[in-house]
Amino acid sequence: MSKRYLNLVSYFAEGVKIVVSDSNSRPATVVQRATIRDVAARAGVSVTTASRALNETGRMSDETRLRVQQVAKELDYRPNSMARGLVQQRSFTLGLLTDDTYGRFTLPVAAGLSSAMTDRGVSVFLSAGEKEPKRMQLNLRAMEEKRVDGLVITGKRIDRQLPVDVSKLGMPVVYVYSKCPQGSIGFVPDDFNAAKNATQHLINLGRRKIVHITGLSSFEAAHLRKAGWLEALDENGLAPFAEAIFGNWTEEHGYKTAYGLFESGADRPDAIFCGNDQIARGVVDAFAHMGIKVPDDIAIVGFDNWEVFAKATRPPLTTVDMGLTCLGKSAGLALLDMIEGKPIESGLRKLNCRLVVRQSCGGEASE
Amino acid sequence: MSKRYLNLVSYFAEGVKIVVSDSNSRPATVVQRATIRDVAARAGVSVTTASRALNETGRMSDETRLRVQQVAKELDYRPNSMARGLVQQRSFTLGLLTDDTYGRFTLPVAAGLSSAMTDRGVSVFLSAGEKEPKRMQLNLRAMEEKRVDGLVITGKRIDRQLPVDVSKLGMPVVYVYSKCPQGSIGFVPDDFNAAKNATQHLINLGRRKIVHITGLSSFEAAHLRKAGWLEALDENGLAPFAEAIFGNWTEEHGYKTAYGLFESGADRPDAIFCGNDQIARGVVDAFAHMGIKVPDDIAIVGFDNWEVFAKATRPPLTTVDMGLTCLGKSAGLALLDMIEGKPIESGLRKLNCRLVVRQSCGGEASE
Repeated sequence: MSKRYLNLVSYFAEGVKIVVSDSNSRPATVVQRATIRDVAARAGVSVTTASRALNETGRMSDETRLRVQQVAKELDYRPNSMARGLVQQRSFTLGLLTDDTYGRFTLPVAAGLSSAMTDRGVSVFLSAGEKEPKRMQLNLRAMEEKRVDGLVITGKRIDRQLPVDVSKLGMPVVYVYSKCPQGSIGFVPDDFNAAKNATQHLINLGRRKIVHITGLSSFEAAHLRKAGWLEALDENGLAPFAEAIFGNWTEEHGYKTAYGLFESGADRPDAIFCGNDQIARGVVDAFAHMGIKVPDDIAIVGFDNWEVFAKATRPPLTTVDMGLTCLGKSAGLALLDMIEGKPIESGLRKLNCRLVVRQSCGGEASE
Repeated sequence: MSKRYLNLVSYFAEGVKIVVSDSNSRPATVVQRATIRDVAARAGVSVTTASRALNETGRMSDETRLRVQQVAKELDYRPNSMARGLVQQRSFTLGLLTDDTYGRFTLPVAAGLSSAMTDRGVSVFLSAGEKEPKRMQLNLRAMEEKRVDGLVITGKRIDRQLPVDVSKLGMPVVYVYSKCPQGSIGFVPDDFNAAKNATQHLINLGRRKIVHITGLSSFEAAHLRKAGWLEALDENGLAPFAEAIFGNWTEEHGYKTAYGLFESGADRPDAIFCGNDQIARGVVDAFAHMGIKVPDDIAIVGFDNWEVFAKATRPPLTTVDMGLTCLGKSAGLALLDMIEGKPIESGLRKLNCRLVVRQSCGGEASE
């Protein structure tokens, strides 16, 4: 039996005794080392108390906690992640499933999740790049086989579910930037209030004729942002200068719409709140071609803080940052709570967004 | 003992017999099911042959292979991933380590890797979002604890190593879009030939005065792309119209440089090969403001095929696609070969790039 094999076996052996039968005829090899049970027995406490003492959790006297820790030291008790898994019935792994091959939404979410989990000794399996439901389901099964403790499902929009069936998973699931089914736990940006704050920012700078150019009306996010825009106007006693203008989430939509708004020769807006940064970029480019000055003649706010766009726009965009990294972190922490059996309320959590003030609205830029 | 615990134990039990001592005093519970050894014994072959027969590898008669497979069926032998790990000394997991929080480079690589690995029953742990060496090292240790079979290291540029020490890892490592240390195995796009082909494309369309505007001279990629540009010119008996113009990898650099080129009033170029799509975007925007027509007056080629830029540019950019998804896949397959102990040559693999022809050069667009 190779040394590596022995190491592997001893690796799985923490907390249970393992008898390895190396072949059909040769005698079995027994591998043993101090387990949490040995520690508990020697310290004269229950396994649960011993475990809590070592994990610095639970209520007990300082004396008990110190005694357990001392015994663990004497016995050279060393938990490891897989062993912890056997004892605590956990693998200390999570799965992250996404349909975003592009990375715009998923990598910030993944980075926030991965970083927060590292601090807690939990590793994250990534499944990315699959578009077909069949292949996505295959990935999900692979994660089940790895005995992940829970699953984070993330996507490209807040009103679509990934084409996988998680109903029979038997493990906790959280949703991030994806549709959250009834009775589940989800994390999304607070689109409504973000849009309201962005519009209020324009009003505070003296703008009164504020147009909203946004993306496809089939997106819930588009409606939430429109509603936030209307709410801010209403609270300030302002009527919308025009109906919200829906279209693609593209520069082209912003570019053409901006041209249309100013070519008509009618009354002109003094600000545009855009549904994303790409639309805002198209709007700003159109005004540059028309000789209309941003922000002097018209103020522009974007949405996403996709820096490669927002910072490169001339002038750089004031825009909403959805805090995707924070969403990933929050979802991971909630999932850990669920795995640990802590009570957690179902429903959608709407996390605060942040307005990043640059030069496209006038006023003082914060960056 | 809970049912779930039993399931977990039986889960680890494939290929080895496990005796679980549930507490210090109670009798042990023995969990057993058909192992590869049982299959081998019943079929009258060695464990190695049985394993090969079931995995459709190795050389043996069809009769033997079929007999082993039949026995496995009779005994309801079912390998599972962790059990396979114990038997084959593998965990069937890989680690992916990146310093790219942005996702531009890493998500396509991760998607290619993840998809190819799924087909082979291998799962990928992701570590993203860490910038500090200490935290990155912590992530690496977590992957070691998970007993990953190998590691893919990927970054944001081909001439920088991630700040982690992998010298004592004791597992195979491959590098993708990152510096590859001496004696290691790395995968990068073939920048030189991609630049050469892009320049040749301009020459084929009749352009002769071709300028190169590119990124920071501290990047190896910038020099490789410059060398490819020069090589294509040289092969066609052309002199460079001007020295290569280095600067930031930003729209602003492209924008300002383009203005400078045409404001001087001197002889003008008829084409610009840009070091990335952002520079190309800045160049195209500057020409739009100056009333210079792309591609009629001047042809533009970008680099990256970052579609959100390349397709939104007016007109859409002809640009180099580095095939990052394919890089991720190739690296994963090489890593599996290394894990399986197959002989594999060290060194850097330069993979072909593809020129995506759109409307910024004239000629016929392919998309």
